Amino acid sequence: MNQQTIDRIRKFTSERDWDQYHSPENLAKSIVIEAAELLECFQWSDEEYDIQHVKEELADVLVYCRDMLDALNLDEDEIINMKMDMNEKKYPVEKAKGNNKKYTEL
Amino acid sequence: MNQQTIDRIRKFTSERDWDQYHSPENLAKSIVIEAAELLECFQWSDEEYDIQHVKEELADVLVYCRDMLDALNLDEDEIINMKMDMNEKKYPVEKAKGNNKKYTEL
Amino acid sequence: MNQQTIDRIRKFTSERDWDQYHSPENLAKSIVIEAAELLECFQWSDEEYDIQHVKEELADVLVYCRDMLDALNLDEDEIINMKMDMNEKKYPVEKAKGNNKKYTEL
Amino acid sequence: MNQQTIDRIRKFTSERDWDQYHSPENLAKSIVIEAAELLECFQWSDEEYDIQHVKEELADVLVYCRDMLDALNLDEDEIINMKMDMNEKKYPVEKAKGNNKKYTEL
Repeated sequence: MNQQTIDRIRKFTSERDWDQYHSPENLAKSIVIEAAELLECFQWSDEEYDIQHVKEELADVLVYCRDMLDALNLDEDEIINMKMDMNEKKYPVEKAKGNNKKYTEL
Repeated sequence: MNQQTIDRIRKFTSERDWDQYHSPENLAKSIVIEAAELLECFQWSDEEYDIQHVKEELADVLVYCRDMLDALNLDEDEIINMKMDMNEKKYPVEKAKGNNKKYTEL
Repeated sequence: MNQQTIDRIRKFTSERDWDQYHSPENLAKSIVIEAAELLECFQWSDEEYDIQHVKEELADVLVYCRDMLDALNLDEDEIINMKMDMNEKKYPVEKAKGNNKKYTEL
Repeated sequence: MNQQTIDRIRKFTSERDWDQYHSPENLAKSIVIEAAELLECFQWSDEEYDIQHVKEELADVLVYCRDMLDALNLDEDEIINMKMDMNEKKYPVEKAKGNNKKYTEL
């Protein structure tokens, strides 16, 4: 996400005085609600889906994730790289390659 | 997310031959599964939460969102700005300021 | 669910003094968290799943639904029949038969 | 849920030829989608909620759970009692009483 997009999201929230609703818990609820709306695009089929609807719902998830990063004052790249360090250890290439088992079963 | 982080996520997937599992539907399921794990950090309290756990789960949501953008060949800034155009119309400042009503009730 | 099972769930909660955590909101979070764990059984495949795991997660969803009925003093049959009245009107047989379109598209 | 209600749900599905869509995976998706709609009743507040809306969404979760029990030919009381056996061991009264820690932390 570029800085202009981030600024637009922040301005959208502050102009509406919505920071008051953006507790981490409320944002966690919001992320899962939007994620379920994204899943609804694939409720009855994994092949037929409305791409415009998918774009809108995925965007909603990403906007609330951005709001949560802001509410907790987190750096997106920092937390992702921290988690990727963990993932790379949990799923070593030689064990994980070409299978989808959970790390607890590898 | 900067390009280096994006490249790291892509390399993680391709080294494990996991693109085969990254259908849009599977990724939509994965996003909601991780979003619910994020919510679990706030299951019984909106105030006491383990910030390290929150960071990890939020990172998981963001990584799967990145995977979905890639699987559908979407540009993150483009879809978010498209959705923000819609949100700004659905929630005009003068009506939405300081209340959390859904646009259908404004 | 028979009365003996309902009583067992209630006793489980009251013996642990857990009614204090069973606000409707906390139970709504809990239901979606368990529902996502149920979905995790099907994360990467719609055909290969661990039936024992499915049973456990579906049971968890049902137990929290029972807790929510209790927290709000609702009758399960009453709310389901009220909703089925709505569903039968929204999805008339002649329009809905053999297709999975949402009622807004019928 | 009494037998009459169960029969009504089954008739609703069979009259519309919807059994074809009721794979366990599709129903797992449907349960989490409806659970998130239930959570949406509490998105911005744990105290102000529309009880009629809550009833409708909780009913939707319960109906899809019933569909899943049917799709997998499971007995509701049997799986719940099996899970309650596990829960009672995981959360012994003397350790769990009055706190909401996860069993892994007890």
